[in-house]
Amino acid sequence: MLNETNALLKSIKTTRPLIVNLTNYVTMDFVANGLLSLGASPVMCHAREEIEDLMKLAAVLVINLGTLGPDFISLCKKACTVANHLNVPIVLDPVGAGASQYRTDINLSLIETFKIAIIRGNASEIMALAKISETTKGVDSSIENTAVINPAKILSKQTNAAIVISGKTDIVIDDHLSIGLDRGSALMPSITGTGCLLTAIIAAFLALEKNRFEAAKLATLFYGICGEIAQKKSSGPGSFKTNFLDALSTFIERGDYERH
Amino acid sequence: MLNETNALLKSIKTTRPLIVNLTNYVTMDFVANGLLSLGASPVMCHAREEIEDLMKLAAVLVINLGTLGPDFISLCKKACTVANHLNVPIVLDPVGAGASQYRTDINLSLIETFKIAIIRGNASEIMALAKISETTKGVDSSIENTAVINPAKILSKQTNAAIVISGKTDIVIDDHLSIGLDRGSALMPSITGTGCLLTAIIAAFLALEKNRFEAAKLATLFYGICGEIAQKKSSGPGSFKTNFLDALSTFIERGDYERH
Amino acid sequence: MLNETNALLKSIKTTRPLIVNLTNYVTMDFVANGLLSLGASPVMCHAREEIEDLMKLAAVLVINLGTLGPDFISLCKKACTVANHLNVPIVLDPVGAGASQYRTDINLSLIETFKIAIIRGNASEIMALAKISETTKGVDSSIENTAVINPAKILSKQTNAAIVISGKTDIVIDDHLSIGLDRGSALMPSITGTGCLLTAIIAAFLALEKNRFEAAKLATLFYGICGEIAQKKSSGPGSFKTNFLDALSTFIERGDYERH
Repeated sequence: MLNETNALLKSIKTTRPLIVNLTNYVTMDFVANGLLSLGASPVMCHAREEIEDLMKLAAVLVINLGTLGPDFISLCKKACTVANHLNVPIVLDPVGAGASQYRTDINLSLIETFKIAIIRGNASEIMALAKISETTKGVDSSIENTAVINPAKILSKQTNAAIVISGKTDIVIDDHLSIGLDRGSALMPSITGTGCLLTAIIAAFLALEKNRFEAAKLATLFYGICGEIAQKKSSGPGSFKTNFLDALSTFIERGDYERH
Repeated sequence: MLNETNALLKSIKTTRPLIVNLTNYVTMDFVANGLLSLGASPVMCHAREEIEDLMKLAAVLVINLGTLGPDFISLCKKACTVANHLNVPIVLDPVGAGASQYRTDINLSLIETFKIAIIRGNASEIMALAKISETTKGVDSSIENTAVINPAKILSKQTNAAIVISGKTDIVIDDHLSIGLDRGSALMPSITGTGCLLTAIIAAFLALEKNRFEAAKLATLFYGICGEIAQKKSSGPGSFKTNFLDALSTFIERGDYERH
Repeated sequence: MLNETNALLKSIKTTRPLIVNLTNYVTMDFVANGLLSLGASPVMCHAREEIEDLMKLAAVLVINLGTLGPDFISLCKKACTVANHLNVPIVLDPVGAGASQYRTDINLSLIETFKIAIIRGNASEIMALAKISETTKGVDSSIENTAVINPAKILSKQTNAAIVISGKTDIVIDDHLSIGLDRGSALMPSITGTGCLLTAIIAAFLALEKNRFEAAKLATLFYGICGEIAQKKSSGPGSFKTNFLDALSTFIERGDYERH
């Protein structure tokens, strides 16, 4: 997978696909910087009035529901409508689904109404979308990823979307396909937005690799390896964030790919 | 105080208390990352609809009035109502009180209506809440901390809240108790959000240490020492921010505690 | 220009001019930290109710249209009205003008209604304001800076504003005056907000240097040199951002000024 990943990274840097993000206020700086590090071209959209113009230029639309509110939801629905109409693929990050009924309901409403290409969340969030109730503590996941594989497969079939479950082992599922990726760093959950940014990075890969399972798998693998590279140079969450953004701008070397 | 601080830090990392933040858009990334560095579990709340669900899980509620507006104020009032009802302690950051009459009025309205556990601000902000008029320049403090001790003691009695006054010497006051802490780094005011994050860190300490004076004192001490540790490794505000987030993830060593 | 730049930097650190920013949510943390690194005093304004109080204290008003919406536009218009009334100079960043008709129209409406001192954008944005149509991809510029010189001169005359065009060569124009500055780092476009922050840094220089062409020229020069200093120490976009904020806090040494 090393060569495929680097070939995709090169294509992203060359074509600079426009990734339109409707995303939360907490992590948008990190998401924008991560996409720029990768070589993609991010735009953060906030106004109904410009959705149609932006979507005509968009390679992929990212919907991240980290900071909700009636205006934002209405914006998301309009963007999804336009994206589906123009066949711009949508990648959804159901931040905090399960943490409040409100968040769960909004997310369910989106996946039932619109055609979504890829959904990426942690185990708690994916379980909530699969309508399997369990207690979530805030926006962190409190359950094992393995317990979510079967519900995620059902969710994938119901929604015709690929599902990425982030955790110690990342799992990528698409209908009957599934793969577990055991990469990454324990420092990743210690900075805010690593989930949000992975969602956006998957979107950037999807801009160049139309097979959504491949795109999700290679992006998740690349992301985990970047985490490992960054951890080696870091003495805490602050320096990890800096080094992680540096790593996202590079290609993967064989040593980093194999060392694990 | 070294052993108490490290014991509290350990408890925070083990129990990962959920700190619900209604906070400003400028510094929320820094606040979220600081709480994660510490080992606490932050959530940034923006929707009325999820306040009740989140508050049931919350250890502490942080209200930070850095970016105001009618919707945000209404959200704060709802959150404070629910928090008081559920006995979730509230920590208030009256950002920019005194800088505009609007900000002063909103803050006064909150402390007169709700039970607040701890208020943390700079001298100008605390003076404004104590209704002692003086000119504030923006969100920075322009007066000496010592002049604010007596007004702060009166404010503490009036509101039955502990008061933390940030500045060159940090002062923690609760009714008849008071302590001055002469720690920290001159680089702290050169990055945005060091005040906001201290407020949130105090909240995380309060989640585990129910004595609010102790919680505020140990959090403020820890924060100042982290500033000193970070400064030693930094060549400017950019690297200071990185190193400060690293320091927040560690325990305090005797050498760092005593060196001063 | 070395001595003039350092003299201005010293004045900024001494007087700490208050820069009031109506700016986008994506980069406001970076803009605030950049202004603090420089020694200026930033405040991010979001409420109609405090515009008059803040503007009385403001040295310069920065309007950045990165994240639009009806409330924000209304806020901008009120702030510009008060600023013009109080003779507080306005620096405008027309983020994404040309990327959507909506953004172009809002920006045109502002420059036609209010007295603006300096407009800073990339070539695409300036071309859009000069009403020369060309295709913009998102918020990045897709045209050469040289093609924009004549339209920018006309725009400068029409609006009686100085124009700064950011790009590989930065160009500063004011009526019949123009200068090209060939400084900076290729890493600058790889972090989000380098344009927004330059706009704010120009505002801080304008607070102390009333000649707007001089202020824009020296700020742009300083900014580019900081990029070069940061690049030498960086291994990617993450560390570049950190080192760039460090560089903004320093004075320019002769070696850094001449090395080019």
